[in-house]
Amino acid sequence: MTDAPADLLNLHGVDAAIISHHSKVRRLCGFAGSRALLLIRPRTWYLVTDPRYSEQAKLEVHGATVVIGDGEFQAVMVKEQLLDGANQILFESDHWTIAELAAWKQAFPATSWVAGMRLLQRFLARKSSAELELMRKAQRVTEAAFEHILRIIRPGMTEQEVAAELVYAHLRRGADRMSFDPIVASGPHSALPHARPTDRRIRQGEVVLLDIGCIYQGYASDMTRIVVLGEPAEEVRRVYDVVLRAQSRAIAAAKAGTQASELDAAARSAVEESGYGPKFIHGLGHGIGLDVHEWPRVSKRSQDTMPAGVTITIEPGVYLPGKFGIRIEDTVVLREGGCERLGSLDRELFVV
Amino acid sequence: MTDAPADLLNLHGVDAAIISHHSKVRRLCGFAGSRALLLIRPRTWYLVTDPRYSEQAKLEVHGATVVIGDGEFQAVMVKEQLLDGANQILFESDHWTIAELAAWKQAFPATSWVAGMRLLQRFLARKSSAELELMRKAQRVTEAAFEHILRIIRPGMTEQEVAAELVYAHLRRGADRMSFDPIVASGPHSALPHARPTDRRIRQGEVVLLDIGCIYQGYASDMTRIVVLGEPAEEVRRVYDVVLRAQSRAIAAAKAGTQASELDAAARSAVEESGYGPKFIHGLGHGIGLDVHEWPRVSKRSQDTMPAGVTITIEPGVYLPGKFGIRIEDTVVLREGGCERLGSLDRELFVV
Repeated sequence: MTDAPADLLNLHGVDAAIISHHSKVRRLCGFAGSRALLLIRPRTWYLVTDPRYSEQAKLEVHGATVVIGDGEFQAVMVKEQLLDGANQILFESDHWTIAELAAWKQAFPATSWVAGMRLLQRFLARKSSAELELMRKAQRVTEAAFEHILRIIRPGMTEQEVAAELVYAHLRRGADRMSFDPIVASGPHSALPHARPTDRRIRQGEVVLLDIGCIYQGYASDMTRIVVLGEPAEEVRRVYDVVLRAQSRAIAAAKAGTQASELDAAARSAVEESGYGPKFIHGLGHGIGLDVHEWPRVSKRSQDTMPAGVTITIEPGVYLPGKFGIRIEDTVVLREGGCERLGSLDRELFVV
Repeated sequence: MTDAPADLLNLHGVDAAIISHHSKVRRLCGFAGSRALLLIRPRTWYLVTDPRYSEQAKLEVHGATVVIGDGEFQAVMVKEQLLDGANQILFESDHWTIAELAAWKQAFPATSWVAGMRLLQRFLARKSSAELELMRKAQRVTEAAFEHILRIIRPGMTEQEVAAELVYAHLRRGADRMSFDPIVASGPHSALPHARPTDRRIRQGEVVLLDIGCIYQGYASDMTRIVVLGEPAEEVRRVYDVVLRAQSRAIAAAKAGTQASELDAAARSAVEESGYGPKFIHGLGHGIGLDVHEWPRVSKRSQDTMPAGVTITIEPGVYLPGKFGIRIEDTVVLREGGCERLGSLDRELFVV
């Protein structure tokens, strides 16, 4: 038995399952609205949303009966009798809050509520070829936006200006939105892995770290590159080479059946050999798809083995506080015997 | 006793409180990073985050001791002994998932975990003058972005193109990010309250609904206006006048001590008198501040009374499926005896 939606009720021994996580709902029945539940019953699926989304649901939902109801979802379920005969109901315990479960228990006191963690995660992690095609498109938009920046970036621009141009370039090329706020970190800011763009002006010779991604027809991209305006310092080139070697080693090791922690170790070994080991202060990467962060986490603490079709980021980094930081990030899909990058942008240091 | 942070432990009879909601953490100690907890103990507050944010925490946090720890927060709390002597701990039951609470219970099995709903919500809803100043700035950025669109919008542009220009105009003017994806809905799309921008081309004479807002130094704006390129149909003008009258009636009724449901009723009465009552298919508005949606909900089902200093949106709408929709939205702050709009943009129909 797999963790696919068709097996979900049997796998957990329940009469019904309620899927509430937005991306899962979208993947399973096509509905992209922001407020919805998918109810899985043995013979029928129901997409429940409210009147604001009735037109959108008609256009988007497939494989599920659309139920439009006003007010709280519990009341809609009662009114439409959608849970009749369901004694055991599975829910996402890593998505519902304590307060939400309390409201369900109050509305259905005779029901046994069964907590499920990370429901469908392995099913959702394995991307179909149609999904991979959308992820490649998201990646192409991001690469085109990056290439646009290479043409216009110059000393004196602020980080915020570069970030605004990056967002605009993505949206102009058809992105639904950004998958996260762009990181544009110049000089010492690049040593902060999660820096936010400021009004700091970029100077000649400095490292500029760009970590960017978008959502394209629901699917995420996520990429990091380093740009230097003018000649980089020798130390920048040296650290860049270390990080590139780390990334290459992980890419070479990535294939179906790899343990996430092995992949992290492959990259980390290259950083440690160079003496920068303590400066690689985060995990190697993360699953990516409908969410920019999804299963699996690729870190030394992970205990997951990754099947074919899983898409992950590989993003080692070295951060020298007060000086600069280097990170290189690409997305790959795992195959039998190897992996394939979803993008085609050069992985070298961009000196412009 | 109020619901202010200084009274929180006594109010709930606990030894400690863990605040996890991002906006609340930011408001209480200044930290804007995305992964953090604020631990409130009787004598000391602790901001707990991970090594990625150590530099940022040093710069931003005030009134709390910064604790940097690797891995899960539970392990950090154990290692740093931050919960020693805490037998009763308050948590946000409308923020923690079932799985999160289970992890805390496992790490601290002897502790009694006390569920708190909507913690600090009335405290946070009442804005200081410094907060209002930031909200006015956010609003000014949004109004400037709207005025920019008025200058460049023309028939043949797609909704997505207009949305890209709107985002760019906000970011260029210093917005941290958008507070939600802009709604740019033309012609019949405007009849969908939550339409997303498409590649549909805007035509002469059509309604274009723009619902936009940003985050500026942490604070949100949210505004809706209608633009028509060329002469609007008579029905558009008629419905616009109905919605404007509804909004004016609510603005006239809004003051400290008003019940949220009364305000909804004031606006709804104007729509009902015109015969469009059933086409006003959502609530009147919502609290806004650090989050674009916060307490209170301003709807007929609300049972809340709103104190002075609360900031809410007032956004009645009429939606005629297949034809067009009209919504007008402004943010106001409640005062004794009346309310004040945070923006100054004209509320008329924009014909360009």
